[in-house]
Amino acid sequence: MTLPTPPAASSLDGGCAFADGAYVPLSEAKVSLFDWGFTRSDVTYDVVGVWQGAFFRLDAHIERFFASMQALRMQITYDKAQVRAILHGCVRAAGLQSAYVGMVCTRGVAPKGVRDPRLAENRFYAYALPYVWIASPEKQKQGLDLHISQRVRIAPESVDPTVKNYHWLDLVQSLFDAYDGGHDTSCVVDGAGHIAEGPGFNLFMVKDGVVSTPARGVLMGISRQTALELCQRLGITAHAQPVTQQALRTADEVFITSTAGGVMPISKIDGVALTGLPGPGPVTQRLQEAYWAMHDEAAYRDPVDYSH
Amino acid sequence: MTLPTPPAASSLDGGCAFADGAYVPLSEAKVSLFDWGFTRSDVTYDVVGVWQGAFFRLDAHIERFFASMQALRMQITYDKAQVRAILHGCVRAAGLQSAYVGMVCTRGVAPKGVRDPRLAENRFYAYALPYVWIASPEKQKQGLDLHISQRVRIAPESVDPTVKNYHWLDLVQSLFDAYDGGHDTSCVVDGAGHIAEGPGFNLFMVKDGVVSTPARGVLMGISRQTALELCQRLGITAHAQPVTQQALRTADEVFITSTAGGVMPISKIDGVALTGLPGPGPVTQRLQEAYWAMHDEAAYRDPVDYSH
Repeated sequence: MTLPTPPAASSLDGGCAFADGAYVPLSEAKVSLFDWGFTRSDVTYDVVGVWQGAFFRLDAHIERFFASMQALRMQITYDKAQVRAILHGCVRAAGLQSAYVGMVCTRGVAPKGVRDPRLAENRFYAYALPYVWIASPEKQKQGLDLHISQRVRIAPESVDPTVKNYHWLDLVQSLFDAYDGGHDTSCVVDGAGHIAEGPGFNLFMVKDGVVSTPARGVLMGISRQTALELCQRLGITAHAQPVTQQALRTADEVFITSTAGGVMPISKIDGVALTGLPGPGPVTQRLQEAYWAMHDEAAYRDPVDYSH
Repeated sequence: MTLPTPPAASSLDGGCAFADGAYVPLSEAKVSLFDWGFTRSDVTYDVVGVWQGAFFRLDAHIERFFASMQALRMQITYDKAQVRAILHGCVRAAGLQSAYVGMVCTRGVAPKGVRDPRLAENRFYAYALPYVWIASPEKQKQGLDLHISQRVRIAPESVDPTVKNYHWLDLVQSLFDAYDGGHDTSCVVDGAGHIAEGPGFNLFMVKDGVVSTPARGVLMGISRQTALELCQRLGITAHAQPVTQQALRTADEVFITSTAGGVMPISKIDGVALTGLPGPGPVTQRLQEAYWAMHDEAAYRDPVDYSH
């Protein structure tokens, strides 16, 4: 598959998408109403951050995206190097120094009258948007108010959560609950009533200096992985293990991780302050600082060429 | 909301969609890559059949669609009469005497930087396609070979199955299993291992003249409801109750119900014939005949005006 020539730097204002084999403005990035990626949510995706002119951990995101496609038995006509080139092309065309960059593969549409998903032609999309924050840097100074919803995350026996997917109605309902109650965001629980994940993020708690994050039934987030690696670097004990609601409510610190903002502090749960002080606790703050410092390490940087 | 004038009869070939407030060819019916209806599968829909020039049970489908939207806290600018008019307009423009007609509501896109689903502008789509068969009339003469997958249907505690939704990855995976094994279609089970539903259909079994269909954790299909009503009319005892895999495998007859084909016989389960004969058993056959005869009853017909 020959790639189209990427548009000139900053030729598209505010964002750029790649759809049907061409770079297009965001407003032209559309999926057929009949694509099974829509009508069956038979789709996988990944998102990666660009910060100050460079992708962060792009390899890891592309690897996971291809693993997700393989798990869903999807194939695209681009290899990993070409996907990388397309993502770079989107960021360059959008002229964004900091960006939220997505790659999407849908099942596509099968030939007329056919219901066999093996016969559909899978479709690839990509895009670059201005960097997205679940909590803005200003909001992070105060910390977020998290609602713990009693809604149950779709079980791993139904949909493999390690394959990044758009099956989010449970999370969306929990968001309604959160906003109705005046909170900032939400998480849902698993079948045992333990903490699962939130809309677009993993959860962590700190108690007596030890960090815990749910072990199963959640996305194996790359930001989650980064936080666990940073704990190791910093000599902070961290475990992936079940986290009860009570443990979260009585934690010393709680934070969330996401490509959309990195490590972000939770200061209240259902309106009740975790500690006397707003903003990040000491462990969260160390991890936040280490997270952003890691963006300067050559091993994790993939600079965008904006020059031509 | 003023409706656009419906296109002239048969002005669009092979199908017609309604998107962004206008009647368009199917190829132009597209959803934004950033619509939460896609990126969160935050969407509901309904489909209704047109047979020999008339909608079948259109009221029931429109009622369910509006109930689904209400459950997801969605609102569109069209009322029920206008949705009905749009659906009629699609069928007329497509010039289809028999059609598969859909209505879709997506969450839409929230203002920039906002994650609150309450602030998104919901979007409405509709379409008319040539009638869709899960099993063609020819295939129905033989009956289908159903694969019982051990994959677990998304639980009602996570996503309300009575709100018609596109959370189908579990069903899609079961379809891969079915096609890999040389079967025609598939169903999945619930958390207790009992029969749940298939991709786009409800399941029924007949044993010793008594009809059973799963009671919970499944879509409350309108075709399912029609089959239950026809049982009552015909004096056939029918229960909504748990159906075990073993019961299904040893049933006298098994059939499925869907807007995409009505009452359709299963003749084999995982390649093993249910009875000595292919095609529909006697109860299935009575229900099939009654199902199509019901399409002639004025109470359930809503004729399409193709004349101008």
